[in-house]
Amino acid sequence: MPLHPILATRLDDLLGSRFSQASSDRDLHGRDDSAYAAPPPDAVAWPQSTAEVAAILRLCHEHRAPVIPFGVGSSLEGHVLAVAGGLSLDLSRMDAILSISDEDLDCRVQAGVRREALDRALGERGLLFGVDPGADATLGGMAATGASGTMTVRYGNMRANVLGLEAVLADGSVIRTGSRARKTSAGYDLTGLLVGSEGTLAVITELQLRVHGVPERIAAARCTFPAIDALVGAVIDIVRLGVPLARCDLIDTLAMHAVNEHSGRREPELPTLFLEFHGSHAAVEEEIDTVRRLAAEHGGGEFAWAATTQERAAMWRARHQAFFAARGLRPGTLSYTTDVCVPISRLAEIIGLADRLIGELPFPGPMVGHVADGNFHCQLLVRDEPGERALARAFVDALVARAQELGGTCTGEHGVGVGKRAALAAEVGEDAVAAMWAIKRALDPLGLLNPGKVLPDAPALAAAHP
Amino acid sequence: MPLHPILATRLDDLLGSRFSQASSDRDLHGRDDSAYAAPPPDAVAWPQSTAEVAAILRLCHEHRAPVIPFGVGSSLEGHVLAVAGGLSLDLSRMDAILSISDEDLDCRVQAGVRREALDRALGERGLLFGVDPGADATLGGMAATGASGTMTVRYGNMRANVLGLEAVLADGSVIRTGSRARKTSAGYDLTGLLVGSEGTLAVITELQLRVHGVPERIAAARCTFPAIDALVGAVIDIVRLGVPLARCDLIDTLAMHAVNEHSGRREPELPTLFLEFHGSHAAVEEEIDTVRRLAAEHGGGEFAWAATTQERAAMWRARHQAFFAARGLRPGTLSYTTDVCVPISRLAEIIGLADRLIGELPFPGPMVGHVADGNFHCQLLVRDEPGERALARAFVDALVARAQELGGTCTGEHGVGVGKRAALAAEVGEDAVAAMWAIKRALDPLGLLNPGKVLPDAPALAAAHP
Repeated sequence: MPLHPILATRLDDLLGSRFSQASSDRDLHGRDDSAYAAPPPDAVAWPQSTAEVAAILRLCHEHRAPVIPFGVGSSLEGHVLAVAGGLSLDLSRMDAILSISDEDLDCRVQAGVRREALDRALGERGLLFGVDPGADATLGGMAATGASGTMTVRYGNMRANVLGLEAVLADGSVIRTGSRARKTSAGYDLTGLLVGSEGTLAVITELQLRVHGVPERIAAARCTFPAIDALVGAVIDIVRLGVPLARCDLIDTLAMHAVNEHSGRREPELPTLFLEFHGSHAAVEEEIDTVRRLAAEHGGGEFAWAATTQERAAMWRARHQAFFAARGLRPGTLSYTTDVCVPISRLAEIIGLADRLIGELPFPGPMVGHVADGNFHCQLLVRDEPGERALARAFVDALVARAQELGGTCTGEHGVGVGKRAALAAEVGEDAVAAMWAIKRALDPLGLLNPGKVLPDAPALAAAHP
Repeated sequence: MPLHPILATRLDDLLGSRFSQASSDRDLHGRDDSAYAAPPPDAVAWPQSTAEVAAILRLCHEHRAPVIPFGVGSSLEGHVLAVAGGLSLDLSRMDAILSISDEDLDCRVQAGVRREALDRALGERGLLFGVDPGADATLGGMAATGASGTMTVRYGNMRANVLGLEAVLADGSVIRTGSRARKTSAGYDLTGLLVGSEGTLAVITELQLRVHGVPERIAAARCTFPAIDALVGAVIDIVRLGVPLARCDLIDTLAMHAVNEHSGRREPELPTLFLEFHGSHAAVEEEIDTVRRLAAEHGGGEFAWAATTQERAAMWRARHQAFFAARGLRPGTLSYTTDVCVPISRLAEIIGLADRLIGELPFPGPMVGHVADGNFHCQLLVRDEPGERALARAFVDALVARAQELGGTCTGEHGVGVGKRAALAAEVGEDAVAAMWAIKRALDPLGLLNPGKVLPDAPALAAAHP
């Protein structure tokens, strides 16, 4: 169903060549890195300012057209799919870094700024941003999905690093939340509410972010273990001792194999812990001693050090490329990805379950994880056909249900999107879902912002949807 | 206006002696540690379970009676005042510590558990809770006001330490938010929305909290400076270097004088930095060297060490008693307290302004602050008469306006209550206030939960209020 011709004309008048109904543009905006599929959006707009975003939203509001915010399409749960049609709002041209403060350790960026661009700009000033999900996502997208990643164990997730937002509500009104203060108790935490709302409550246009000084010393190493439960045992001891690791990631045997194949490396194909230490020289030395001792107690091997900055970058690139590398394990398939997060004491148990269930599947499923947070990911390489999709779905359902029984959550960092709406309902219960729907209706009464995401269908509300 | 007799009878049937309309009980629940005053609530209830809270809220909903959640009454912005009458819901008997996990570094408590009781229980297990606002408040109250305190620079505020909640909505429905996972991207962050909502969106009945291992070494010291701006300069350098201080508090000259008078101590009456270091032996040694050097560069004196656990406790008791000690500076007066929080680069400027303005007032105003967060408090000792109240109000208004101009917030940790509603509106703007009202109406359509707090009056909504 194309956009209403009057709306299309008005968007064309407003945006000129930055509005398109061409199928090539629509197709590029109709999918993300998930295995979910839907027809593409009806059109794409590339606003260049908050005022343009507001004008677009006012027009879409007037014409009852859904709006789906889009960054780079690196989301993993179908967040950008146009399941109810409408306009894909591509924020990638709003990519200005507006300010960086060395003194206050914060910065302000437009929503379309990408993580690696921000890292470069900060790095030149001796600063770093503490959220690294791997993908070169936009900061707006990272906030919208409540992203975290390899450094969250030390620096927190997006929620902890977003001090404030500028955002456009469904009716085109513009709100600013938070401030440049480190903390605030001033009113409802709209910042925290919009972070993780996946574009269903507002379109994020600017972000005020915490940053950190680059530590005096950064050291990174890999360490193999004979089995995953030994590795997890070591991590539990490390966490309990309060060692302030900067990164602590698991790559399982199969994922290590995929990385080797992909990159021509020859790393041992065993469950491997990727570690990074940030701090003063003395503090890092001490942490390394402690972690090496605890790893050895659990059967961990020698530490393989990334001695130079280049080696360290290469090591983490290998970790982050695991997702793409794994596709090589079974070419021509889709990556059916999932993440769960559990209390760390239950991590070995849930990973063990995942391992057993994957062993029974007819396709490979490498695992990686931010294990110090109790968070891990499985990537199932499934053919695009109903049988394998159903097996993958059943695996995810079983894993999520068990994670929830263990006091965990159906998603630690990928978000709900289209794929985990039922899981969310199971996790928080009917009354909490009703509260979420009440908030959704309060801020977006016509249900125009990214419909079909996050919230389980509310039958009573169906009539209010376009 | 007393409660409707039918409601009173039904509450009496439900709660027996745990329901009271006696004026002594009402008076005790009609005030907090602020200088604001209002008629007492119409009645007080002491529920012992979430089911009782839900039953009470259902009854009050049916009879359109306001409900004001109450912990110990240590709030500082009039949060517990019954400005629209109604029932004070005293949660202090819901004081069970439900579980503590050494492995997962979390605990679950009922909302009426007090901070010091939790600290004792955790301490026996070698654990600590990272939020210490000074007052022996309830954890439910601390969450409701978005409290932080002396350790927030290291361990974060309540928002960062509440993993999940159980809460009762205005209609008596019970929701559970969050999980035991360290992080989640599962749906709207209801946990973060309720933290800091000051009892206006729900009544918090249980909390899942992060805890930390007691570090290998804790060291505490005081250091005087010739002037506040020198002290702040040292703190800025310390923060910029990323030294992970556990506490970093300013007590100004007048507050030091008050503490000396109150406690019979003989500390130097100069701007004083109270510091605490948490970590391994080597890390703490290194931090102390760094901080001592930076303090000296800014004219800081010798460190005075709290050598034993007892001395350390006494030192922080002195810091936390500053509020009560200051009352001795002008007996028989009210404490008109305020807090603001600014980007740290503007801290010296805003404290300088506060100092100048206080110098022009006819009453004393000692200052303390969590300076590494850019957060500080003034305590104006005013007579309970209109002239001095007006001067105090004008001081707060001027300080808040300037803090907001500097990119800061009208309250870093005390909350909005009745006193900062206009300041909130000025800070976030009309459209954000409208969004907050939309959320309020969505979750509490009759406006029964703690009316008159947080949100600036919404004329259009006045009719919906009881």
